[in-house]
Amino acid sequence: MSLISTEDYQRLAHDRLSADVWDFIEGGSGAELTLAANLEAFARVRLRPRVMVDVAGCTTATTLLGAPLRLPLGVAPLAYHQLAHSDGEVGTAHGAGRTGALFVVSMFASRTLEDIAAAATGPLWLQLYWLRRRDVMAQLARRAAAAGYRALVLTVDAPRIGRRLRDLRNGFAVDAEVQAVNLEPALMALTHRRRTGASAIALHAAQTFDPSLTWADLEWLRATCDLPIVVKGILTAEDATRAIAHGVDAIIVSNHGGRQLDRAVASLHALAEVVDAVGDACPVLFDGGVRGGTDVFVALALGAKAVFLGRPVLWALAVEGGAGVAQLLDLMHEELRHTMALTGRPELSDIDRSVLAPALSRAS
Amino acid sequence: MSLISTEDYQRLAHDRLSADVWDFIEGGSGAELTLAANLEAFARVRLRPRVMVDVAGCTTATTLLGAPLRLPLGVAPLAYHQLAHSDGEVGTAHGAGRTGALFVVSMFASRTLEDIAAAATGPLWLQLYWLRRRDVMAQLARRAAAAGYRALVLTVDAPRIGRRLRDLRNGFAVDAEVQAVNLEPALMALTHRRRTGASAIALHAAQTFDPSLTWADLEWLRATCDLPIVVKGILTAEDATRAIAHGVDAIIVSNHGGRQLDRAVASLHALAEVVDAVGDACPVLFDGGVRGGTDVFVALALGAKAVFLGRPVLWALAVEGGAGVAQLLDLMHEELRHTMALTGRPELSDIDRSVLAPALSRAS
Amino acid sequence: MSLISTEDYQRLAHDRLSADVWDFIEGGSGAELTLAANLEAFARVRLRPRVMVDVAGCTTATTLLGAPLRLPLGVAPLAYHQLAHSDGEVGTAHGAGRTGALFVVSMFASRTLEDIAAAATGPLWLQLYWLRRRDVMAQLARRAAAAGYRALVLTVDAPRIGRRLRDLRNGFAVDAEVQAVNLEPALMALTHRRRTGASAIALHAAQTFDPSLTWADLEWLRATCDLPIVVKGILTAEDATRAIAHGVDAIIVSNHGGRQLDRAVASLHALAEVVDAVGDACPVLFDGGVRGGTDVFVALALGAKAVFLGRPVLWALAVEGGAGVAQLLDLMHEELRHTMALTGRPELSDIDRSVLAPALSRAS
Amino acid sequence: MSLISTEDYQRLAHDRLSADVWDFIEGGSGAELTLAANLEAFARVRLRPRVMVDVAGCTTATTLLGAPLRLPLGVAPLAYHQLAHSDGEVGTAHGAGRTGALFVVSMFASRTLEDIAAAATGPLWLQLYWLRRRDVMAQLARRAAAAGYRALVLTVDAPRIGRRLRDLRNGFAVDAEVQAVNLEPALMALTHRRRTGASAIALHAAQTFDPSLTWADLEWLRATCDLPIVVKGILTAEDATRAIAHGVDAIIVSNHGGRQLDRAVASLHALAEVVDAVGDACPVLFDGGVRGGTDVFVALALGAKAVFLGRPVLWALAVEGGAGVAQLLDLMHEELRHTMALTGRPELSDIDRSVLAPALSRAS
Repeated sequence: MSLISTEDYQRLAHDRLSADVWDFIEGGSGAELTLAANLEAFARVRLRPRVMVDVAGCTTATTLLGAPLRLPLGVAPLAYHQLAHSDGEVGTAHGAGRTGALFVVSMFASRTLEDIAAAATGPLWLQLYWLRRRDVMAQLARRAAAAGYRALVLTVDAPRIGRRLRDLRNGFAVDAEVQAVNLEPALMALTHRRRTGASAIALHAAQTFDPSLTWADLEWLRATCDLPIVVKGILTAEDATRAIAHGVDAIIVSNHGGRQLDRAVASLHALAEVVDAVGDACPVLFDGGVRGGTDVFVALALGAKAVFLGRPVLWALAVEGGAGVAQLLDLMHEELRHTMALTGRPELSDIDRSVLAPALSRAS
Repeated sequence: MSLISTEDYQRLAHDRLSADVWDFIEGGSGAELTLAANLEAFARVRLRPRVMVDVAGCTTATTLLGAPLRLPLGVAPLAYHQLAHSDGEVGTAHGAGRTGALFVVSMFASRTLEDIAAAATGPLWLQLYWLRRRDVMAQLARRAAAAGYRALVLTVDAPRIGRRLRDLRNGFAVDAEVQAVNLEPALMALTHRRRTGASAIALHAAQTFDPSLTWADLEWLRATCDLPIVVKGILTAEDATRAIAHGVDAIIVSNHGGRQLDRAVASLHALAEVVDAVGDACPVLFDGGVRGGTDVFVALALGAKAVFLGRPVLWALAVEGGAGVAQLLDLMHEELRHTMALTGRPELSDIDRSVLAPALSRAS
Repeated sequence: MSLISTEDYQRLAHDRLSADVWDFIEGGSGAELTLAANLEAFARVRLRPRVMVDVAGCTTATTLLGAPLRLPLGVAPLAYHQLAHSDGEVGTAHGAGRTGALFVVSMFASRTLEDIAAAATGPLWLQLYWLRRRDVMAQLARRAAAAGYRALVLTVDAPRIGRRLRDLRNGFAVDAEVQAVNLEPALMALTHRRRTGASAIALHAAQTFDPSLTWADLEWLRATCDLPIVVKGILTAEDATRAIAHGVDAIIVSNHGGRQLDRAVASLHALAEVVDAVGDACPVLFDGGVRGGTDVFVALALGAKAVFLGRPVLWALAVEGGAGVAQLLDLMHEELRHTMALTGRPELSDIDRSVLAPALSRAS
Repeated sequence: MSLISTEDYQRLAHDRLSADVWDFIEGGSGAELTLAANLEAFARVRLRPRVMVDVAGCTTATTLLGAPLRLPLGVAPLAYHQLAHSDGEVGTAHGAGRTGALFVVSMFASRTLEDIAAAATGPLWLQLYWLRRRDVMAQLARRAAAAGYRALVLTVDAPRIGRRLRDLRNGFAVDAEVQAVNLEPALMALTHRRRTGASAIALHAAQTFDPSLTWADLEWLRATCDLPIVVKGILTAEDATRAIAHGVDAIIVSNHGGRQLDRAVASLHALAEVVDAVGDACPVLFDGGVRGGTDVFVALALGAKAVFLGRPVLWALAVEGGAGVAQLLDLMHEELRHTMALTGRPELSDIDRSVLAPALSRAS
């Protein structure tokens, strides 16, 4: 079977993963309305292609926080890649490096930051939840800087874990052979404790995440480490404005893939508002519902500087390991160039809102 | 099976109740378009969460008509709780009391006002239909006041009973072992008389309810009893304005759970209009389509001061008696706090319309 | 089985009628988009009920073209009632008379105008298509006047018959035992000639209807007969204005039940535009998609003076003959009064557009 | 079985064609959202019919680029008619000629331009993709002019072939017995080379089409040949304006039947914008989603001067050869006249936007 769309990877991954791991990766919170809205928002967009433009060479090279990227695409932070494949994040780093995509490693990576860095040929960022144990955060930040990671991504939409009903029904816990190896086992013990009707992930977060975090706390993080700070999980102009006032280096518009607040706006519907509020103050990045290169293109048209891919990366990892990740990212890259060619936008700088049809015609 | 959503209670209750009782509880009027619209209105709302707010402590305590409430939630008036469970309203009072929710006892309660009051640890209100027999109403009002009930809720959307086709097809009548014990048996006899193609409830109402009621009649009720008067069933700014002019103490926006006028506006869609018309004149309360704590949150955001839960309470009562009611209300409470945390609104006073995405983005 | 909604009659009628007669009655033209749109337009309407209004007596008596009616309801012109029941239009006249509804007899009635008049106790109008043979029209008009019919209804949306694909596929023709007895057999011969892939009705119309009719031709009809002239099939303000300029006595907003131009606007969506254009110049009447008393109420709210019921009358006739028609019309009457009571509009004059929720809330 | 709608031809053609040929003809690109949107755009249109207009004679004769046409309808350029029927384009030419419709012959016709011209009794145009080998284009243009073709249609929306997933999954290639006989076999060799997971058509286009084409290149084509130049694939006002500035003789609004950019706007939704931008500068033509005469009428109402039919022509050809094409085009013609009669627009010049209901009522 040829793998010519992310849905192909999804189908195969579904066959290979156990039911509760599948649900953990795939599921959203609540009635999964936001999860569905993320996809529908893309499906409703209609494009206005221009013709008779020289598209013999469509180029996607860009820079982000001063570093060059072959394409405006990254792997979103996802916990425990070993749930999908034994190579875990080392495989993903291989794949992302092959295509030149950015890779945001999760705080709950199942391979060490150093092993991942050793395997990586492309840029790495490290994602952090804000823990009650700031010493742990500080230590991770220092290790990341030492290992060559180029930015910290602070997830700000998770003062607690969303009500992911699939995990609650499955009594989901992380199997013992998969560990968040960058953190002390004691700190992570709860994630492995299976309890009926409860999510071990959620119980763990309730104990270890700091729900009292405010913008003022960013100062501490900045003082701890010289890496640029990216905040992930902004959905409003108001928060974007505050983020800039507190000196963040980039913003990721995200609703956590529909896994935190169910009924949060579709990530795509929040993008224009944030871009308009931010202006040139810092790059605005995006995740949520991206399933193909045309989706990447649409997010760029609304003003995103780069776009992150989440679940599909784990599908590809499950199907073919790091090679699968590279194939998937290549497919995204090819689809992006394809969309650039067929819309008559051969350069990233040509991709703006003039390519988006107004809502009225989108209605059909 | 863990009970982690109202739908879980619904499924189990469906298994336990007889078909005609299920239909009586579950059904709406006509083609059940308003019943469906109540739910869809909530499903379409999209929220704009704020981040980096200290949500370590999300508090839900409020006051209503001068009395403190642990949470802005109540049990809507529902006839004959014994249809769901032999403990009837005494069970519900136990459950509501345990969580600190308000309980609005129906005029057609299947347990005595005094027994319910004896079991209650939280506040009670008494609901009344306007009967042709005003002496009966006056007597009930006096008994309620004597038993410690704190307000009268006058249902104003039922000059006659809606055409509930399920009940008509079932020839629904109340079984003899379930009685509206707060009223003389003679007055209630019709409710037990089974007739093909007819609803005993509707025939009874046609004989006993006063369809000539107007705002001027409120004077009589106020003269009868010192309890605050709440009118339930307002869906327009015009009627809200008139209610205030006639000195009501609170207004409940409600379409009777889609059981009266089919094609009435979704309850949620009427809320903003009523809130805007009422201003600070009195509290506006809400019922209709609430199936989770996020729904409660949404109604509060539109300006409701408290929210009532209807059918789900009977599901929970059917499943586990009063303990089930307490579990369900606790779940609603937890989901409300959860939504407050994930939207960055740790206080009830933080919940306003700025959290609601405009209709355009709600469209997906 | 109790018959408590028009859908009940529909189901039973479907069981009793042959497939091709069922399709002839039920079908619309083309892809039946307008047929569906007529129903959907009603299903989307949302109402704003008023409460605390004295609705002890809801009255529906009205007058139309100077004649009193017990309710603002009539039977739309439908060809060949004998297709549904052997009593044909005589049965329908009995039923309509019992409830006091107006009955518009089709030019293609299967019983004589005089027999129908003899059976009728309510008002009758006669519908006419404009034939190439004006002598036939003139003769029918004179017979109608002599038999006590009170108005002529000129169908103006049928210069040719819509492409009713069901009839084309069925090769539909009228069985010999059912005759349009008010017209010479020779003139009707084509309607009985079965041809594969063709509708005998359509072939007949192509030969006998006059497609060159213009407003100026109304003069001839008026000169022929003193009866008031009602034009049926107006869907635009422009045509309503012209109809008034040519002195019509009433206008029926109609898209022929979705049987003529497929993709014509839903009849309900054309009503406000026509009412606004007509003002007080003449009564505006309505048909198209009415399936219950609430639908009647909605059309009145938009400004219709009376409403016609089409297919459901034939369903009822098929199920129970004239008694069925009376039961169905009584049900419509009761549902209308019910809606008046539950919306707080006890008089027909209380029913105006203030009861209609704006489109936004109708969206859900 | 009578063939009374395009869907009838579709069903029969589906039975007769091999699965991969069916998919090649039927499929669109990507998730086929634009393919579906083309059809939905028509299904949502609602019409405002006028009555009492003399429609005894509805005439459809028009002229296009100076040549008379019996009806404003043409056959869109479609590659390889022999995939559908062994007569190929010669059959289509017979059929189109019988009805007087324009026939746009594809550069990838499976019969020679001269054989097609010999069979044609109606006007012919020749479609061209812009090849890297301009000598081939020039030669084809000269042959076309010599054979009596009256215009060149330059397809401008295909700098590369859309991602047609069905073809990719089928590994589609053109069978050896079907050849693009107007081009050297060597140039077309790739189209016959079957490769798993790839479309031979797409690989061929990648090698032979010139993706660097810009408006300036039109000068070369105009210098090569005196035939009028029509550009096909314009979807924006901006490109329409540029096309006029570069002196094109006509514009075809088209999204290539949903086969190029998936998520391009529905063709119908782009039409008004292009018509308004073009004004009287040149004729605007249309294709995309036309499945019946009412669709033709709708496109004319929005300002198209003529309309092209795509897939349905191949269905008809598959079913009955050239006779099938003639029957289908006659059906379209008859449906167009039918719609003109039932909307009260007996002349093409009567068909304007006043017949289109605004979006609000279209919503249902």
